[in-house]
Amino acid sequence: MLAVHLESKKVGLRNAPRPSPKQGFALIRLLQAGICNTDIELLRGYNGFRGTPGHEFVGEVIGGSRPLIGRRVVGEININCSRCSWCRRGLGRHCPHRAVLGIVRHPGAFAEFFSLPEQNLHVVPEGIPIPHAVFVEPLAAACEILEQVPIREGSQVAVLGDGKLGLLVAQVLQARGARVHLFGRHRHKLRIAEKQGVAVDVRGTRLPSAAYDYVVEATGSRDGVSHALGMVRPRGTVVLKSTLHEAIRLDAAPVVVNEVTLIGSRCGPFAPALELLAAGRINVADMISDSFSLAQAPAAFRRAQQKGVLKVLLCDNNHSFPG
Amino acid sequence: MLAVHLESKKVGLRNAPRPSPKQGFALIRLLQAGICNTDIELLRGYNGFRGTPGHEFVGEVIGGSRPLIGRRVVGEININCSRCSWCRRGLGRHCPHRAVLGIVRHPGAFAEFFSLPEQNLHVVPEGIPIPHAVFVEPLAAACEILEQVPIREGSQVAVLGDGKLGLLVAQVLQARGARVHLFGRHRHKLRIAEKQGVAVDVRGTRLPSAAYDYVVEATGSRDGVSHALGMVRPRGTVVLKSTLHEAIRLDAAPVVVNEVTLIGSRCGPFAPALELLAAGRINVADMISDSFSLAQAPAAFRRAQQKGVLKVLLCDNNHSFPG
Repeated sequence: MLAVHLESKKVGLRNAPRPSPKQGFALIRLLQAGICNTDIELLRGYNGFRGTPGHEFVGEVIGGSRPLIGRRVVGEININCSRCSWCRRGLGRHCPHRAVLGIVRHPGAFAEFFSLPEQNLHVVPEGIPIPHAVFVEPLAAACEILEQVPIREGSQVAVLGDGKLGLLVAQVLQARGARVHLFGRHRHKLRIAEKQGVAVDVRGTRLPSAAYDYVVEATGSRDGVSHALGMVRPRGTVVLKSTLHEAIRLDAAPVVVNEVTLIGSRCGPFAPALELLAAGRINVADMISDSFSLAQAPAAFRRAQQKGVLKVLLCDNNHSFPG
Repeated sequence: MLAVHLESKKVGLRNAPRPSPKQGFALIRLLQAGICNTDIELLRGYNGFRGTPGHEFVGEVIGGSRPLIGRRVVGEININCSRCSWCRRGLGRHCPHRAVLGIVRHPGAFAEFFSLPEQNLHVVPEGIPIPHAVFVEPLAAACEILEQVPIREGSQVAVLGDGKLGLLVAQVLQARGARVHLFGRHRHKLRIAEKQGVAVDVRGTRLPSAAYDYVVEATGSRDGVSHALGMVRPRGTVVLKSTLHEAIRLDAAPVVVNEVTLIGSRCGPFAPALELLAAGRINVADMISDSFSLAQAPAAFRRAQQKGVLKVLLCDNNHSFPG
């Protein structure tokens, strides 16, 4: 089968053997996948990665338990041990023994076929177009914020960053009743969230000071956290949503004096993400910048790294789907 | 009256006019005060401070409302506007217009007389010796943690740092039902908390990794936060208790990946602190390293900066109190 292969900071293609899933795992045929910023980080050498990336996908189950065969699915990416105390508490996303699809010790979805535990899979409701369902994984990550922080309806929330994650976070929180203010640098990206009722602001040099009870940092930039800390009110909460693979400088005194909470937030629950998509509450259609076949993966990765580009999709060579 | 005066990194003494308290303020005669690390920071130039420091005190009310006259009191240090939204929400400690006793725009307690709003005062119960009551303010700061973080009985908590704040935090959390593990560098300091049932550990080079749901950082050192982040479990909480007046390097990726919460914690409620002292649950007696008269303030500040020293007390020249 055809599989994308990252090695030595290069995107390659390989003819790899089709996986033979273990007991409890499904064999999945790729329909469509999305390139995430983490994939770009893996290409650049994060975590010494070498292999097949890809963790945002929609696929068709072709091997596994009978009720799943032929279903279109998305899948949670953490493959946990299901035995440790974390797994028993329902927090398998933090299982210390976990593998992660396309990131840690488990080949990813940028291949014609791949495998995942059946318990990780969620059937995609009929009404959701396949290219939209590719967004379930990052959308679940956006939903995670509401699992961690009790943002009340009507709360004023600032979201920093108009990249893919910022746009999804802003839309999720707005859909769930918060009054969201999204700060970004690109008018055309901000417009996507604005269509869903989010107040937007092309960031100048001045950001509002001590003005929000909740600020979500989704810029992925080194200065994002200090900007967020400047915008949050005393006793407020800053959610760290972007994974930054470098150390940041943090001025700890205002965190202590103003009793601010910083909370890291990663993967999230798929069910509310699917619900929001099914209800048409999230504008993901406008977030698709381009689409390539698996065989064009090197070009797709180049495109994904261009300025102003949002989601780049990869699809099985024999299929393409309208956005 | 005699007043300590900090200026140009020197501890001096002045003959200052006795304060004339405004309406709603009490005039207080100093009985005993404590030198806090913040006072040392003010001496070193923090916040461009110049004036009379001192915010940990026990005094006798000699001017103000009749029921308070002659009472021995301790006092909350934030002098707020009582009109803004913070004050109306009962969070006057975060009032943006606040002055702070001996720290911001209000002369401190290292003087024969000083003033505070009557609403800030708490009468010291008979059973608490005066030198012990000096600890109410920092003890309230330790109690603040339980106002912010719902630490359940039996939870395992690590406290980093065996300075004054670390010792108080460890004892408060232990007294409130947590199973506290205090990590420090000084056997004689650790012994103080150990007497109250706290498990202690003279810190070697290795600290337990991902082992606690709660870690309180009270070292005041630049590395404290990263050590705390290394010790906390996924989804756990790191409480930042020491105010560090310099930027720290923070590795943000593990905070996000492990969904850790960092929460800054400052001043706290006096009532539970007084209760704990009255119940004899906190060993503060062993934390008193030395005692000086106001006129000996320069020597007292020198002593407070020596290695291994904990609380140094200052008392009115005409009084002294047994520890």
